[in-house]
Amino acid sequence: MVYITRREHFSAAHRLFLPDYPDERNADVFGKCSNPNWHGHNYVLYVTIKGEPDPDTGLIVHIRHVSQLIDEKILQKVDHKNLNLEVDFLKGKVPTSENVATSMWKELEPGIRELGGILHCIRLEQSENNIIEYYGE
Amino acid sequence: MVYITRREHFSAAHRLFLPDYPDERNADVFGKCSNPNWHGHNYVLYVTIKGEPDPDTGLIVHIRHVSQLIDEKILQKVDHKNLNLEVDFLKGKVPTSENVATSMWKELEPGIRELGGILHCIRLEQSENNIIEYYGE
Amino acid sequence: MVYITRREHFSAAHRLFLPDYPDERNADVFGKCSNPNWHGHNYVLYVTIKGEPDPDTGLIVHIRHVSQLIDEKILQKVDHKNLNLEVDFLKGKVPTSENVATSMWKELEPGIRELGGILHCIRLEQSENNIIEYYGE
Amino acid sequence: MVYITRREHFSAAHRLFLPDYPDERNADVFGKCSNPNWHGHNYVLYVTIKGEPDPDTGLIVHIRHVSQLIDEKILQKVDHKNLNLEVDFLKGKVPTSENVATSMWKELEPGIRELGGILHCIRLEQSENNIIEYYGE
Amino acid sequence: MVYITRREHFSAAHRLFLPDYPDERNADVFGKCSNPNWHGHNYVLYVTIKGEPDPDTGLIVHIRHVSQLIDEKILQKVDHKNLNLEVDFLKGKVPTSENVATSMWKELEPGIRELGGILHCIRLEQSENNIIEYYGE
Amino acid sequence: MVYITRREHFSAAHRLFLPDYPDERNADVFGKCSNPNWHGHNYVLYVTIKGEPDPDTGLIVHIRHVSQLIDEKILQKVDHKNLNLEVDFLKGKVPTSENVATSMWKELEPGIRELGGILHCIRLEQSENNIIEYYGE
Repeated sequence: MVYITRREHFSAAHRLFLPDYPDERNADVFGKCSNPNWHGHNYVLYVTIKGEPDPDTGLIVHIRHVSQLIDEKILQKVDHKNLNLEVDFLKGKVPTSENVATSMWKELEPGIRELGGILHCIRLEQSENNIIEYYGE
Repeated sequence: MVYITRREHFSAAHRLFLPDYPDERNADVFGKCSNPNWHGHNYVLYVTIKGEPDPDTGLIVHIRHVSQLIDEKILQKVDHKNLNLEVDFLKGKVPTSENVATSMWKELEPGIRELGGILHCIRLEQSENNIIEYYGE
Repeated sequence: MVYITRREHFSAAHRLFLPDYPDERNADVFGKCSNPNWHGHNYVLYVTIKGEPDPDTGLIVHIRHVSQLIDEKILQKVDHKNLNLEVDFLKGKVPTSENVATSMWKELEPGIRELGGILHCIRLEQSENNIIEYYGE
Repeated sequence: MVYITRREHFSAAHRLFLPDYPDERNADVFGKCSNPNWHGHNYVLYVTIKGEPDPDTGLIVHIRHVSQLIDEKILQKVDHKNLNLEVDFLKGKVPTSENVATSMWKELEPGIRELGGILHCIRLEQSENNIIEYYGE
Repeated sequence: MVYITRREHFSAAHRLFLPDYPDERNADVFGKCSNPNWHGHNYVLYVTIKGEPDPDTGLIVHIRHVSQLIDEKILQKVDHKNLNLEVDFLKGKVPTSENVATSMWKELEPGIRELGGILHCIRLEQSENNIIEYYGE
Repeated sequence: MVYITRREHFSAAHRLFLPDYPDERNADVFGKCSNPNWHGHNYVLYVTIKGEPDPDTGLIVHIRHVSQLIDEKILQKVDHKNLNLEVDFLKGKVPTSENVATSMWKELEPGIRELGGILHCIRLEQSENNIIEYYGE
């Protein structure tokens, strides 16, 4: 079993808050991330797939196809977008990195299975100091 | 003459558009950066100061004081903020990296002179692929 | 189960040696790290915590609290310090990255449990070429 | 159990193709990596070893010896070389990162066992966007 | 005057040698870079343009157009190619980073002038340890 | 005129203080860098040389020779050393990055001239947030 990881980027705006909470409680729970005027990040996304390399080609999956899948299912929807307002797969969720990473897993898993790989990890870096990893369980 | 650079970070939302332009023209000029729902970045800011090191201490300026100045004049105003709506020194300007960098120069220059240094360069990285530098002239 | 990682930095001096060993043996075992006049590093510390995101807030832990805990329990004690002479939790140990990482685990584990997370990994980079990871077992 | 990782670099040329495939099929499977005139990369290699730190010295292995082993078994053979034509341990294999990583495992495992460690992971970065990991199973 | 830099990547094979030199002299002058079987690198290319930001839009040039120009004039010709054999603008030159950088200047300068900017610097990183900069004079 | 930069690393201990100053004044001027028990850093050193590439070989200088010169004149003296106690070219100076960079210029300039290049810049990164550059004037 070998693991292959593809790194991608996107830039997006978001705000962390719960509509039921009064402003002070949102500020208390989410700190400056609750700013009602939004803020944003350059996100770095790592998608790790496991599988057995084809004995002839030495490839687990065609990485071009993985890159196209990530572009279609994720980047087209989140890059230069507002994660609270514009992303179908984040509807009704606070766009914390935790929720973004687990939601991206669901978006990518079926397509990666079709490409012949097994999705192993979604790693999302909101900044170089704050990193989320999700292994699907 | 020796040059000292301090690196700082901030995360912010913005939108590139001119209110007089119709949407299609904004999209044409500013591309996906004109998205009306905002997007955002992790910005990296480098402030370079020149001066002659003190013959006793070997220091150009006290870097702690520079860091405090940047925090007070810049980071408090832009970190986790909306560059279009909330930043006094960007009022009335399209928040392109060009405009943000030249505006930051004006905010920092007097304070750095008071600390005994000469502001040499503002470098602003909007992403690792897009970088602006301004030397005050 | 989702994993969240916080990255922090510190700079410290240290020396690798055993007081019972003659100098040549220390030089043989620890190489240039045994220099009696000390040397030092910029260490990068990654603390990884696992847990289930709160179904409302989408957060595993409040990352601000984690950052405060690391500051209080670790950074205040090691940053700009001598790891051989000044750090209570390293007393009597050779400050190899292996020993520093496993000692930091013991310092951080109870506080992270109190914050509602499970400590998963301490990763300590002494340089970009030499990295230690400890998973508590 | 503690994990120690050593990072190394090498630069090499390669070409991905199967001699039995017609050119169009190679182009279809391997994309621009099948260019008959070769291309190349700066590879980054991470070798991770696990073990229990010696209770006296606090070391898992002597990292100098690991570095020498990697140099002798790997870097001397691949750095500034052609991975298709010049590397004994890649003979008869398409030099995909998958095949390079699993082949390097076989080259390094016995020597690391002799040094008293257990090889845990070979991580090979062909670029910052394409990463392979192999855990020996 | 403000400076804007665009970062791009390419991977290529090359060999440093002079056809008139005997092999030993090539090995002496170019070291392991003279390997007749080629080797290769992941190159990082920074193109810096200077100009005055448009007073309305706050832009020096449309960075999308710069990126397209670099792609058409440079990346299409060098990415996943052999710098000795396949690149028209390097014909008859030893593909040292010095020669590659000065040749890229000539390829890019007219197009950047047409876009309304002034080419200021070509920076070419052959590895993170070896960097070339050319300012056109 | 083309510029070539070589990047190197070293790790060292130091302390910033003036022996005539009372402890409180040292603490006030140098902050936590005045800790009497030392601290240390991983320094990154960039040496930039300018010159005209040889019309035949396309090289400014033989970068191997530059690397050997830096090793002999600088790295052998500072790597895994104490900058206050053990470095001949820093005797009698407070080892601020400003003083270290200007002193390294003096050590390197004659040898680089002998190699046929012109020393252009010494850049010293004490951390990724604090950077010194010196151009010899």
